Amino acid sequence: MYDEKQAEFSENQDLEAEVNEILHLLEEKKYSKLRSILLETNVVDIAEILENISDRLGLDKEILVFRMLPKDLSVEVFAYLPEDDQVDIVNGITQHEIDHIMEELAFDDMIDLLEELPANLVDKILINTPPEERRLINTFLNYPENSAGSLMTIDYIDFKENMTVQQCLKHIKEAGLDSETVYSCYVMDSQRTLKGVVSLKSLVMADSDTKVNEIMRMEMISVNVLTDQEEVSNKFKRYGLLALPVVDKEGRLVGIITVDDIFDVIDDEATEDIQLMAGVTGADDEYLDMSVFKHVKSRLFWLFILTCSYMITGGIIETFEAMLSDVACLIVYMPLLMGTGGNSGSQSATLIIRGMAMGEISLKDFLKVVWKELRVSFVAGLALSLLNFLRVMYIDGNGFFVALTISAAMLVTVMVAKTVGGMLPMIAKAIGIDPALMAGPLVSSIIDMISLVIYFALATLILGI
Amino acid sequence: MYDEKQAEFSENQDLEAEVNEILHLLEEKKYSKLRSILLETNVVDIAEILENISDRLGLDKEILVFRMLPKDLSVEVFAYLPEDDQVDIVNGITQHEIDHIMEELAFDDMIDLLEELPANLVDKILINTPPEERRLINTFLNYPENSAGSLMTIDYIDFKENMTVQQCLKHIKEAGLDSETVYSCYVMDSQRTLKGVVSLKSLVMADSDTKVNEIMRMEMISVNVLTDQEEVSNKFKRYGLLALPVVDKEGRLVGIITVDDIFDVIDDEATEDIQLMAGVTGADDEYLDMSVFKHVKSRLFWLFILTCSYMITGGIIETFEAMLSDVACLIVYMPLLMGTGGNSGSQSATLIIRGMAMGEISLKDFLKVVWKELRVSFVAGLALSLLNFLRVMYIDGNGFFVALTISAAMLVTVMVAKTVGGMLPMIAKAIGIDPALMAGPLVSSIIDMISLVIYFALATLILGI
Repeated sequence: MYDEKQAEFSENQDLEAEVNEILHLLEEKKYSKLRSILLETNVVDIAEILENISDRLGLDKEILVFRMLPKDLSVEVFAYLPEDDQVDIVNGITQHEIDHIMEELAFDDMIDLLEELPANLVDKILINTPPEERRLINTFLNYPENSAGSLMTIDYIDFKENMTVQQCLKHIKEAGLDSETVYSCYVMDSQRTLKGVVSLKSLVMADSDTKVNEIMRMEMISVNVLTDQEEVSNKFKRYGLLALPVVDKEGRLVGIITVDDIFDVIDDEATEDIQLMAGVTGADDEYLDMSVFKHVKSRLFWLFILTCSYMITGGIIETFEAMLSDVACLIVYMPLLMGTGGNSGSQSATLIIRGMAMGEISLKDFLKVVWKELRVSFVAGLALSLLNFLRVMYIDGNGFFVALTISAAMLVTVMVAKTVGGMLPMIAKAIGIDPALMAGPLVSSIIDMISLVIYFALATLILGI
Repeated sequence: MYDEKQAEFSENQDLEAEVNEILHLLEEKKYSKLRSILLETNVVDIAEILENISDRLGLDKEILVFRMLPKDLSVEVFAYLPEDDQVDIVNGITQHEIDHIMEELAFDDMIDLLEELPANLVDKILINTPPEERRLINTFLNYPENSAGSLMTIDYIDFKENMTVQQCLKHIKEAGLDSETVYSCYVMDSQRTLKGVVSLKSLVMADSDTKVNEIMRMEMISVNVLTDQEEVSNKFKRYGLLALPVVDKEGRLVGIITVDDIFDVIDDEATEDIQLMAGVTGADDEYLDMSVFKHVKSRLFWLFILTCSYMITGGIIETFEAMLSDVACLIVYMPLLMGTGGNSGSQSATLIIRGMAMGEISLKDFLKVVWKELRVSFVAGLALSLLNFLRVMYIDGNGFFVALTISAAMLVTVMVAKTVGGMLPMIAKAIGIDPALMAGPLVSSIIDMISLVIYFALATLILGI
C-alpha cells in the first residue's frame, strides 16, 4: 500500500526546507540569492513562504520580501495570500503600490479581497478606482453568497459573430488575460446575447480566415447569476467543463466561472453535508480561525434539541420502570439496542444522502431504496440477532426468554432503523429540507426512541410482564 | 433563498422532455429530424438519452440511434456511456465498428472500458490492436487502483527543447487531441526527461519564431505513477492546475492527468470519509448497483464491533445494578448522557477529520485543538448542564441531589467527549490510521462507556450510594 503519511511528510519537508533557507538568507541579508530562489518557486508556494516570514519574523520582513518580487509576480502572489496577510500588506505599502495591485488583480480575486475588508480599508483601496468600475464592484459585492454571481469573474474573452479566427487570436493576444480564462471564448451578437462558445484549441486548429461562428459550438451550457453553486459545480462535473458562462435574465453574458474556483465549491458542499450529518451548523470558517463562542454556537443547537428529545426517551423509560426493576438485566441491553439501532439507521441514511448528492439516487428510486434496505436490514439484523442470542443465553447466562427478547428486538430494531434511515433523507428532499439533516442527531434520537419502544413492547410480550 | 429543488426539477425536465421527443421520433421513424436534434445536443446528454432508449425500447433501438451519429461523435458518446451499455454496444456492432471506436477512443477512456470487461470481450476488442499498443495497455491495466498511473492518459503534446513556437503550434494541429489535453504541453530533452511546461496560451501569445524553451515554465509540479490519487487531487487544488504531468522514477514523462478526471477523485475521497464516519466500509459502487450481499458486508463489520463493545458497556451497567435499582430514576437519564456524550464527541471528531482532510489542521496543531476543545466543551457543557439541572429538579421533580448528579455528569461527559473526540483523529493520523475511523461507531461506543463510568461514579459520590 502507498504510504500516504510518508508522502505528505516529505512534501511538507521540501517546502519547510525552502522556508528555512529563505529565512536564513533574509537574516544574512543575501537578498539577490533570495530573490533568485523565489523566482523559481510557484506563486502558491511563495505565498506560503511569505505567510511563514510574517509569522516568524514579523510584517516588516514580509513586506520587504513582497517588494523584492517583480511587480506582476507580486500581484499574483498577493492573490494567494490569506486575508489577514492581504490586509496587513495593504496597510503597510504605499497608495501607489496599492493602486498597482488593484489594477492588475484578477477581478474575482479583487472581489474576494473586498468582501473581507473593513469599510475604511475598502475606501482606501478603491480611492483611485474609476466610478464605473466601482459600480461594477458594488454589483458583484451584492450577489448572494454561494450564487454563480459570487463565483464569476468579468475577465473573459468575447468575440463578435463575424470575426475571423485571425482577428480572434489577435484579440486574445491584446487582452492578455490569465490562462484559465482564455481557453473558452464567447461569441456574442450586437445585443451581447451569448451565441456560442469557441475553445482556444479550435481557434488554433482552424484556418486563419475562417469565421468564428462557423467553428463555435452552439449547444449552450450556461447558468444564471443566481444559480446555486451546487448546481454550478454539478454542471462542471457532468460536462467536464473548464469554464462556464454566466448570463442574466435576458441571456446576456455577464461573466464566467473557471474550473479552479470549482474545487473549493465541491469541497465546501461536501464539508457542509459532513458537518450537518454530525449535527454541526454554521461552522463555515476554518476550525482554528473560529472563536470559542462561534464553535459553541455551531454545536449547541443540536445538543439542545437532543436534550429535549431525550425527555421523551426518558418518558418512555419511566413508563416501563416497573418492568425494568422486575427484570433488572433488561437495563444492561438498553445501550446495545439503542446504539445498534442508531448506527444502523445512520449507515443507511449516510449512503442515501451521499448517493443523492452525487446524483446516483433520485426521488423516483424511493421504492427501490426501501426494498433494498428491507432486504439488507433483514440479513444484517438476522446475523446480529443470532450473535446476540448466543451471547445473552450462553455468555451472560440470562436464560432463553431474555435471549429471545434481545434477539427479536435486535432484528426488528435493525430493520426499522435501516428502512427509516433510508427513507427519511428522501422524504426530506421531497419536501425541500436538506437531506443531510437526516443522518444527524435528530434522526438517531428518533431511532433511539423507536428502538426502546420496540424493546420494551417485545419484552412485555415475550416475558409476559 | 434559492430554490434548489425547483432548479433541479426544471433541469431534469428539460432532458426528460428531450428524451420523450426522441423516443417519439424513433417510433415514428422520423430519423432525419431525430438526428438533427441529437447533433445539437451535448455528448454527455446524448449518452444519457441512449441509456434511456435502451432501458425503454431495448438494445436494438439504442444501437440504431448510436449508428445514426457521425463517426467521431459516436466515439465521444461511447466514452460517456455507463459500462453496461458499452458492453452491450460492443456486443451488438461489427468488428469493423469496434476497431474504429478503439482507434479513436481517448487512451484513458479505453483503459477504463477494458478494466470493466470480461476477458473474452477484451480479446475481441483488441484483436486488431498492434502488439506494441497492447503492451502499453497491459502496463496501464496493472497500475494500482487510486494511483496516478490509473488516472493518467498518454494523449498529451510533447515538444523538443529547440522547437520554435510556430513548429509547436503546427505539431498541435497535427496531433489533433482532445481539448483538455492540449492546454498544457510538455518540453522534453532527448532522453524524454521532462524539462518544462508550456501553456497553449503562452504559445498563442508568443512570437512565432521564439524558441519554446524560452517561454516554458521550469518549476516542476509533477507526480510519480504510484502517487496516491488524494495527493494528486491536492496538487490540482493547491496550484489550480488544468493538467499534471506524471513521470517515472527517472523523471521521464509517461502520461498526464487532466482536471476533468479530478472531480471524481475529490468526490470519491469525500465519499470514502463520509462512509467511514458512519461505519460503512467498502461500499465503493453506486448504492443501487450494489447487491444486497455487498451492502450487508459493507455494514456488518462495524455493527459486529458495536455488539462486542456493548458487552463492556453492559458489564459496567451490571456492576452498578444495585445502585440503579436503589435510585431507579437514574436509568431514565442514561440515554440522555450517553447520547449527548456520543454526539458531542462526533461533532468534534468530524470537524477535526474534515479540517485535516482539507489541509487546514496539521499534527503540529494538536495542543491548539485540545485547548480549543477544552474551552468550547466547558461552555457548551455548562449550558447543557444548567438546562438539565432545571429540568431534572423542576420538571421531573427528582430533587436537588439527583439534579446535581445529572448536571455534573453532563458537564464532565461533554468535556471529556469533545476533548477525546478532537484528539483521537489526530492520534490516528500520527500513527498512520485513517482519521475518518475516529468519528465512527467505535469511538461513539468508547465515549458511551466513558459517559456511563462518569455518570455512575458521580452518582456514587454525590448520592452516597
